[in-house]
Amino acid sequence: MNIAVAQSGGPTCAINASLLGVFRHATKYEDIETVYGAVNGVEGLIYNNFVSLNDIIQSDDDVELIRQTPSTVLGSCRYKLPAPDSGDAVYETIVATLRARDIRAFFYIGGNDSMDTVMKLDRYFEANNIDIKVIGIPKTIDNDLPVTDHTPGFGSAAKYIATSIQEITRDSSVYSVESVTIVEIMGRDTGWLTAASAVLRANGEVAPHLIYLPERPFSVKQFVEDCRRVQATYPAVIVAVSEGIELSPDEAEGFQSGKNDAFGHKYLAGVGKALEKVVTREIGCKVRSIELNVMQRCASHLSSKRDITEAERIGGAAVKAALNGESGKMMVFQRISDRPYNVRIVSVEAEKVANHVKYFPTEWINEAGNDVTEDAIRYTLPLIQGEQNFRMKNGIPQHYVLPEALPRPKK
Amino acid sequence: MNIAVAQSGGPTCAINASLLGVFRHATKYEDIETVYGAVNGVEGLIYNNFVSLNDIIQSDDDVELIRQTPSTVLGSCRYKLPAPDSGDAVYETIVATLRARDIRAFFYIGGNDSMDTVMKLDRYFEANNIDIKVIGIPKTIDNDLPVTDHTPGFGSAAKYIATSIQEITRDSSVYSVESVTIVEIMGRDTGWLTAASAVLRANGEVAPHLIYLPERPFSVKQFVEDCRRVQATYPAVIVAVSEGIELSPDEAEGFQSGKNDAFGHKYLAGVGKALEKVVTREIGCKVRSIELNVMQRCASHLSSKRDITEAERIGGAAVKAALNGESGKMMVFQRISDRPYNVRIVSVEAEKVANHVKYFPTEWINEAGNDVTEDAIRYTLPLIQGEQNFRMKNGIPQHYVLPEALPRPKK
Repeated sequence: MNIAVAQSGGPTCAINASLLGVFRHATKYEDIETVYGAVNGVEGLIYNNFVSLNDIIQSDDDVELIRQTPSTVLGSCRYKLPAPDSGDAVYETIVATLRARDIRAFFYIGGNDSMDTVMKLDRYFEANNIDIKVIGIPKTIDNDLPVTDHTPGFGSAAKYIATSIQEITRDSSVYSVESVTIVEIMGRDTGWLTAASAVLRANGEVAPHLIYLPERPFSVKQFVEDCRRVQATYPAVIVAVSEGIELSPDEAEGFQSGKNDAFGHKYLAGVGKALEKVVTREIGCKVRSIELNVMQRCASHLSSKRDITEAERIGGAAVKAALNGESGKMMVFQRISDRPYNVRIVSVEAEKVANHVKYFPTEWINEAGNDVTEDAIRYTLPLIQGEQNFRMKNGIPQHYVLPEALPRPKK
Repeated sequence: MNIAVAQSGGPTCAINASLLGVFRHATKYEDIETVYGAVNGVEGLIYNNFVSLNDIIQSDDDVELIRQTPSTVLGSCRYKLPAPDSGDAVYETIVATLRARDIRAFFYIGGNDSMDTVMKLDRYFEANNIDIKVIGIPKTIDNDLPVTDHTPGFGSAAKYIATSIQEITRDSSVYSVESVTIVEIMGRDTGWLTAASAVLRANGEVAPHLIYLPERPFSVKQFVEDCRRVQATYPAVIVAVSEGIELSPDEAEGFQSGKNDAFGHKYLAGVGKALEKVVTREIGCKVRSIELNVMQRCASHLSSKRDITEAERIGGAAVKAALNGESGKMMVFQRISDRPYNVRIVSVEAEKVANHVKYFPTEWINEAGNDVTEDAIRYTLPLIQGEQNFRMKNGIPQHYVLPEALPRPKK
């Protein structure tokens, strides 16, 4: 028998570690002959586009190289399957492809949308008595998947964000002038990544002085007052703000009426740029906005060792679950303790995760809505621990790239 | 006798290493009692704001911590001295301050503007028979100082830029859709940092597929054609572009007439954002612009070991030069060979550097003006070699911060 694995959704630093987890655990079983990698997520199943991971990964060197490569070595997709009972021919195509290769289990590494795919494939297989197991492996820097304590990819992103903001803090405080530096952070409509910047406090930093998450309505007026108040003590104010913050209802109307374009071009120029304009207009001090951008999800040179290790572990656990007969499940972390840090991996129904969002706990946001509590630091710190041993070449990290001319397995 | 050192201009990852170089070399001489650090550059000399580095740096731990801290531990300034023969009282103030502390030599770590200060102070001292030596120590990520082969700070910035663009390249190529990713890079009106991105070719990367420097006029029309042509082979096009590119004369008029705002808001939104709009309008594919922003000059977690080592070495050489009676000079690197890499440090008149700019050699730009030659790679590669051993705490790099309550030396 053979198995297949694919990667989906936005890139992270840990998604290839989960791929390795699946492959390396599978090779322990004599029954499993080939581990196929489907190229570009579930699209690989539809278009019969596979590579043999057994051909690709032949040495410890290959393993190390793939482990330190960010993003998805197999490519990704944002494909949404139709309902399993829609009669859509795509399911028959997928079943034909998998059967032709004797693939008995499919592992899908991804976020909310990917778990939707896991759930639908499993339902179709079950309804049609097809014995192919489907298991989801969580992955997203946003950390917004329900049930699991955290998601692989989050720890590395958090480590990069905290490190970068600390460096930006040093950079911003060299001149003896008042300034506001706004750092815009990913996470869509959840605040996990932005809140992670607070871990700097564990090292004695005061910055970021202000932290704004999408889980609370954002008031421009309050933001300006906050900046002014902080600046009286700390001339160089550092602000961490989520890309997804929403204006409070009473202010939104004024902004939408065209009187003020600060948020009008939110999706064009980003919330950081909008707040930069607000500071210029209302405070008039030196101001800079910084988008950490995709580096948050791909800066593998600074990935968290714990994140990478856990990502590989949860990939292996998925194989074990499938071989135990489970299907339609996603693997999750359950945190047993913070100190010493300890987690167990269990499986839950993918439908509990698919298309749902886990928001940052509002009880971990301070009353003023401009900072997070100690709970956020306690929660995040264990996830950013440790650094990978990195293989460099010519002073630059080495990456693995799927050879275009790779011999494809026989169809 | 005592000496003083100060830091000026924009932050880098290597500027504190040069400070250490001055301090550690000075401690070898019994004649030198105290090494003072002037706070906020030459302003520290004017406002009599000093710390004793002997108090601050007492152990190897202190040295390591300061070495791995980005930006300036003593703060910075952008103060421009008046002409030495202007009769301005600021010179008398400075002389009084230095004499009161028995400071016989002043070391200024900075860029073009700081060398202007070195030159002026030296001329004033010489004209007034004041025996205080002044030596400049180069520093700028822009690498735009004349005479010296390269500047401390450049290698670390180049390493961060190349590494980040490689990660961005992985990130941008996961989906099977056409895209253009534009990375905007610092360097003001010189292209050294942007050209450094080409070192990725040494590791087999094709990206960045297009490189645009300020040393050549930029044509929007040619840019669009370049993107289209590259995209036919590489669906995910990576563009490295200098923040300081200028429109070609024949296109500039059209843009300035208000017909097109692509460059009209250059200094508001940045050249990357402007080109993003151009791609959206002219090509219509997925497009993203990324500003590497201040992380280029402060991401010390990825600094080049060679850069840091050389920065410390050139700081020490400055002390040696002053003790040999030199003044009004800046220390420079002379490259002896690329392979094996070998440099010597000598001094040159500061006036040869002050207020001058060293541009990227136009003969290292290809004919089409959209790439650099092998020479750029050969030149940059030795400067990004090696990584620092980094002290981490709680999963985050440790930084040194000047204690606010630090006991100040007696005035």
